Amino acid sequence: MRYDLAIIGAGPGGLSAALNAKIRNKSVIIFGEDSKALSKSKSIKNYLGFKDLSGSDLNEKFKESLTSYDIKFSKERIQTVYAMGSYFALELKDKSMVEATSVIVASGIDLGKGLKGEDKFFANGVNYCATCDAALYRGKDVVVIGYNEESVEEANFTSEIVGSLTYVNMYKKDLDLNENIKLIEGEIPLAFKGEKKAESLVFKSGKEISADGFFIIRDSSKPERLIPSVKLEDGHIKVDRLMQTSIKGLYACGDIVGKPYQIMKAVGEGQIAGLEASKYISKVQRENKEKDKK
Amino acid sequence: MRYDLAIIGAGPGGLSAALNAKIRNKSVIIFGEDSKALSKSKSIKNYLGFKDLSGSDLNEKFKESLTSYDIKFSKERIQTVYAMGSYFALELKDKSMVEATSVIVASGIDLGKGLKGEDKFFANGVNYCATCDAALYRGKDVVVIGYNEESVEEANFTSEIVGSLTYVNMYKKDLDLNENIKLIEGEIPLAFKGEKKAESLVFKSGKEISADGFFIIRDSSKPERLIPSVKLEDGHIKVDRLMQTSIKGLYACGDIVGKPYQIMKAVGEGQIAGLEASKYISKVQRENKEKDKK
Repeated sequence: MRYDLAIIGAGPGGLSAALNAKIRNKSVIIFGEDSKALSKSKSIKNYLGFKDLSGSDLNEKFKESLTSYDIKFSKERIQTVYAMGSYFALELKDKSMVEATSVIVASGIDLGKGLKGEDKFFANGVNYCATCDAALYRGKDVVVIGYNEESVEEANFTSEIVGSLTYVNMYKKDLDLNENIKLIEGEIPLAFKGEKKAESLVFKSGKEISADGFFIIRDSSKPERLIPSVKLEDGHIKVDRLMQTSIKGLYACGDIVGKPYQIMKAVGEGQIAGLEASKYISKVQRENKEKDKK
Repeated sequence: MRYDLAIIGAGPGGLSAALNAKIRNKSVIIFGEDSKALSKSKSIKNYLGFKDLSGSDLNEKFKESLTSYDIKFSKERIQTVYAMGSYFALELKDKSMVEATSVIVASGIDLGKGLKGEDKFFANGVNYCATCDAALYRGKDVVVIGYNEESVEEANFTSEIVGSLTYVNMYKKDLDLNENIKLIEGEIPLAFKGEKKAESLVFKSGKEISADGFFIIRDSSKPERLIPSVKLEDGHIKVDRLMQTSIKGLYACGDIVGKPYQIMKAVGEGQIAGLEASKYISKVQRENKEKDKK
């Protein structure tokens, strides 16, 4: 099945885009978890229409706005978005594909700075998807730096393939890790060291650990990794005032397109992206009908 | 008194800008009436956070969001905004001035097309402010095309100065007009005719009325008349992604900066404008303190 619209990110921007595309009668799938930045806010005073409420209450109200509409929610993580010309193919972790006529990227921004050397060694010993790349390290020594629930699953899966696996726990206590995994806790990773590829990870304490490969598993990954060849500007996806990216049919909104990192801004941009994507989808559908006639 | 921020327009964009500037502790004055486009909407289904509510209910909720803050609301109409370098002077109808360090224009857009010849004859027989320009027509024949309550006051005032005044009623029944005013009702104005200046007004019925001057009194006037020399693009005020116009310290948001004409878009842009204007104000205040030290 091909969806009209796939939205990557279920924060304020993504939900707003979904609402507006549904009002235009498009079929919509959203990928992502509830926004943590939103849910963690204790008090939000600048969402016009409410006086003061918690982020989790606002998130509930956002989701209530969508209850009348048939929207497919998925917690799957998109690895890569491929522009195929007249449609997009979204690759999931298990390598399966979802197709959509248009895509809106609303996946937020990683406010963390990343580790030193992370960019330099990306794909040279530093990886972001164990499910995708664990096979490269069959029988070798691997370190997983885990920031979320997914990283635990990734580590368990990877430990069955690689020679040895060390899990650096940046997530929470009492992890359900396989017994053959070595655990490092209470250490803060700082930097990768190496010549042509990452060879070791240095911690704040001065401790250093060598390995053949390193996996960083955190919630958002950089836009250029999600969508190869999309144009960036100052580390954000470049969009025009109608939220169109450099790729036809691909829109973006919210924190990923730039500052200020604010809820109403994301919601407003989501509205534009949702409406513009709907217009684009209708145009593609009309063109396809014309072709069918011939 | 000089305000930190003057906002022109009390629709969704202006209110959102005010809220965000207040959270940054700026002094704020808003000029304008409640948005008619908003209040008239019977059902709004795409304001994220609410499921379905009337425009007037949403407007009430917007205003409730602002009740904790000290914001000066004014129903006065701004005639012209003058950029004075380090501040702005806003001219009211009675020629008095209000000063502000920064200005946000959120005055919406006039969806009406205007009358044929209106632009061509502007300031040559066609005027928008009777209070300002009635004296030009002392003892002469004048037509007022009135679309709002203000136009009734304008006509009454003008009738005491000019030779004869004809009021074309586009507003409502039972107007409280001076006795010396001639009333035209049930006719739809179409176009101005003339050589170098507007000489007559043509109605849809074919009826035509000659005069020395014509006043069109409607709610929003074109941005280039409100702010001389601001850069436009396709009939809208040109802004960058941070809502900055071509004039330093002057921001704009909502319908006046472009399509789609939607509430969440306006609110999101208002947030950016409010935050960016606050940043600008703080910078000017720091610079002034530096100067005072010297």
